[in-house]
Amino acid sequence: MADQHAQTGENSRLTEIPAIRWEEPPEGPVLVLLDQTRLPAEEVELVCTDASALVEAIRSLAVRGAPLLGIAGAYGVALAAARGFDVEDAAAALAGARPTAVNLAVGVRRAHAAYRAELGKGGDDRQAAEAALAAARRLHREDAEASARMAELGLALLDELVPGGGHRILTHCNTGSLVSGGEGTAFAVALAAHRAGRLRRLWVDETRPLLQGARLTAYEAARSGMAYTLLTDNAAGSLFAAGEVDAVLIGADRIAADGSVANKVGSYPLAVLARYHHVPFIVVAPVTTVDPDTPDGAAIEVEERPGFEVTEITSPQVTMAGAGGGIPVAPLGTQAYNPAFDVTPPELVTAIVTEKGAVSPVTAEALAELCDRSRQVTI
Amino acid sequence: MADQHAQTGENSRLTEIPAIRWEEPPEGPVLVLLDQTRLPAEEVELVCTDASALVEAIRSLAVRGAPLLGIAGAYGVALAAARGFDVEDAAAALAGARPTAVNLAVGVRRAHAAYRAELGKGGDDRQAAEAALAAARRLHREDAEASARMAELGLALLDELVPGGGHRILTHCNTGSLVSGGEGTAFAVALAAHRAGRLRRLWVDETRPLLQGARLTAYEAARSGMAYTLLTDNAAGSLFAAGEVDAVLIGADRIAADGSVANKVGSYPLAVLARYHHVPFIVVAPVTTVDPDTPDGAAIEVEERPGFEVTEITSPQVTMAGAGGGIPVAPLGTQAYNPAFDVTPPELVTAIVTEKGAVSPVTAEALAELCDRSRQVTI
Repeated sequence: MADQHAQTGENSRLTEIPAIRWEEPPEGPVLVLLDQTRLPAEEVELVCTDASALVEAIRSLAVRGAPLLGIAGAYGVALAAARGFDVEDAAAALAGARPTAVNLAVGVRRAHAAYRAELGKGGDDRQAAEAALAAARRLHREDAEASARMAELGLALLDELVPGGGHRILTHCNTGSLVSGGEGTAFAVALAAHRAGRLRRLWVDETRPLLQGARLTAYEAARSGMAYTLLTDNAAGSLFAAGEVDAVLIGADRIAADGSVANKVGSYPLAVLARYHHVPFIVVAPVTTVDPDTPDGAAIEVEERPGFEVTEITSPQVTMAGAGGGIPVAPLGTQAYNPAFDVTPPELVTAIVTEKGAVSPVTAEALAELCDRSRQVTI
Repeated sequence: MADQHAQTGENSRLTEIPAIRWEEPPEGPVLVLLDQTRLPAEEVELVCTDASALVEAIRSLAVRGAPLLGIAGAYGVALAAARGFDVEDAAAALAGARPTAVNLAVGVRRAHAAYRAELGKGGDDRQAAEAALAAARRLHREDAEASARMAELGLALLDELVPGGGHRILTHCNTGSLVSGGEGTAFAVALAAHRAGRLRRLWVDETRPLLQGARLTAYEAARSGMAYTLLTDNAAGSLFAAGEVDAVLIGADRIAADGSVANKVGSYPLAVLARYHHVPFIVVAPVTTVDPDTPDGAAIEVEERPGFEVTEITSPQVTMAGAGGGIPVAPLGTQAYNPAFDVTPPELVTAIVTEKGAVSPVTAEALAELCDRSRQVTI
C-alpha cells in the first residue's frame, strides 16, 4: 500500500480527530481517515493519495458506517479526478469495495455524476475535478446537517417520552461521529442530551462480536466527556430489571416499508426487553435508510459473517494463527452462527426519528408519508 | 506453587478427561484437576499434593462450578489428612477459598465431619483420613447420581413439552461434566437427548464476559459428538425469531423460596425472549440449589465482578499489561457494569427440574413441597 500511509495523531490526549477529512498539502490533495481498526488503543490516521488506497481502507474496515462510507466514496472519486487518475475505473472500484453498503455506491455516483456533468458542459479536467470535490463536500455537509436535525428532533421526543430529564439511555453498536459526516444518529441524540445537561448516563452495550460499543462508542463517549458505563450485551437485562434504563436509542442499517428495522445483531433482544419493561425503543436514522422497495422484515436479507468473528477474538494488538488471525476462544472446528444484523418488527419500535421528522407509532402509512414529504423537499 | 504441577493430557485428541479425580501413585495420594483456565486450547491437568495447592486452583478458577467445588473441597480435606497435614487449617483455608460458593463450604464440612467422627470413635489418623476420603467419594458419587436423575427427568419433561423429538436446545454458560461429579445439570439433559437420538442441535451462547459457553460448553459438546453451534449472546434473538429454538435449558446458582432463579448473567434476557416467543424455559439444578432462607429474587445478592473482565479480553495464551492482564478492548479508564448473575422471576420459568422431581408451574408451595420430600428421603 504505497499510497496509503499512517500518521499518529499529534495529540495523544482525547481530541476531536474527524473520521474523514480532505486536505490539500503542497504535494497534492489527500483524503485523511481515522483508522477505526486501531481504536481505542491508538489514534492513527491513514492518508490516502489515490482511490485504490481508499478501497483498501474500506475493505479493512478502517473506514466504516453507512453514511460515512457514502462520503468516503464521493471524496474517493474527487481524489482520483484531482490526481489525474482514471475516474471511471476509480468509481467502479470504490462502488464495489463493499457491495452491500448502498450508501457507498450512492456517494460514488453523486460525485461521479457531478464530474461527468462538468465535462459534458465543456469544462476541463480541473473544473470537473472541482465539481466532484464540491459534490463530495456537499454530501458531507448535508450529512452533518441531517445529524444535527436528528439530534434536535430525537432529544425533543426523548424529553416528551421521558419527562423530567436526567435521561439514562442504553445504546448498541456505534452510531456517532465515526459513522457520519456529523455527529451521527442515535449517539448524536445522546450527545445533544449531554450538552443540554439532561443525560444522566449512557449505557454502552459492548456489541459482540466486533465490540463496536466497547471499542468505538466508549471512545466517542469518553472524548465527549459523557457519563457512560460499558456492559456486556448480557447485562442489559439486569439494567432493565433494576429500572435503570429510561430509553433505548439505536441506529438502523435498513428500514423496510412496513417499519421493520434491520440493525446490528442484538438490537432485537433489546427491543423485546424494552417492551417487557415498558421502556421506549427509539430508532434514529436518516430518511435515506427507509427502503420503499423492501416491503417488510422478511424481505430484508441479513448478511451472515464469518464464524471466526465468534470463535476468535481479534485485536489490532495481537495476531495469531487462527483463520481470522485472532485468539481462539472455542475448540478448533467449532461452527458458529454469526448474523451481522437482526430485524425488529415495527410493533416493538416506539418511534423512528429522521432528519425530516419522527414517526410514532410506526406504520407503513406514516413512513410512506414521511418519505413523500422528504422527496418534495429535496426536489 | 511447588505442590501443584501441570501435566499435559496424554492424548491430544478429545478424550474423556474427568474434571477431578483422586489418584494414589507410589509417591502418595494426589488430587488431579483438569485446568479449566487452559480450555479449550490445551487439556492440562493440575496435580495437587496438598490443600494449599488446591486453594490456589480454586482461586484461579482452574476448578469451578458449584457442585464440583463441593467435591473438590471434600477431597481437599481427605488429601490433607492422608498426607499428614493439619486438617483443621486445611479445612478452614479450603472453605474460605471462594466465600460465596456455598457448595464448597458444605463439601469441606462433610469430609471434615467424617474425619472428626472417626477420631472421636477412637480411630487413628489413618482411619480418620480414610473416613474423610470415603465421605468425599460418597459426595462425588451422589452428585453423579443426581446428574443422571436430572438428565432422565429433564429429558422426559422436554419430550412432553416439545413432542416429536428432534430438540433444538439453547443453553447458556457451562453446566456439564466440568462443573459436576457426573454429567452436570442442563447440559446433562441435552446429552441425554443426544444419546437418545433426539437432539437436533445444541445452540451454545458464548456467555460473555468469561466465555464459558465458547470455551467450555463447546468443548464438552465437541467431546460428546453433539451437533452444536456457537453464537454470540446477541444472536439468540435471531434464533428465536426464526423459530429455531424449541427450549431453553439453563442451570442455577441459587433458587429463592418463591422460585426466582439466580444464574449466569444473560439468563434473564433469554427468559424474556423465550416468553415472547412461547418457548419453554427450563432450569435444571440439584435440590440443594433451592435456598429456603432466601424468600425471593430481591433478596438474592448478586456478585458484581471486576470491570476488567469487560474492558479487557483475557486468554491463557496472551498476557498483557492491563489490570486483568488481558487485551484492552475499551478506552483506558472506562467504567464497566459487570454483574456475574441475574435473577429470573418464577413467572418466566416454565419448570425447575431437580433430581427429586420437577416443578411446573413454579410456585413457592410446589418448591417447598419438593424440598420437604427431598429431606424426608435423605433423612
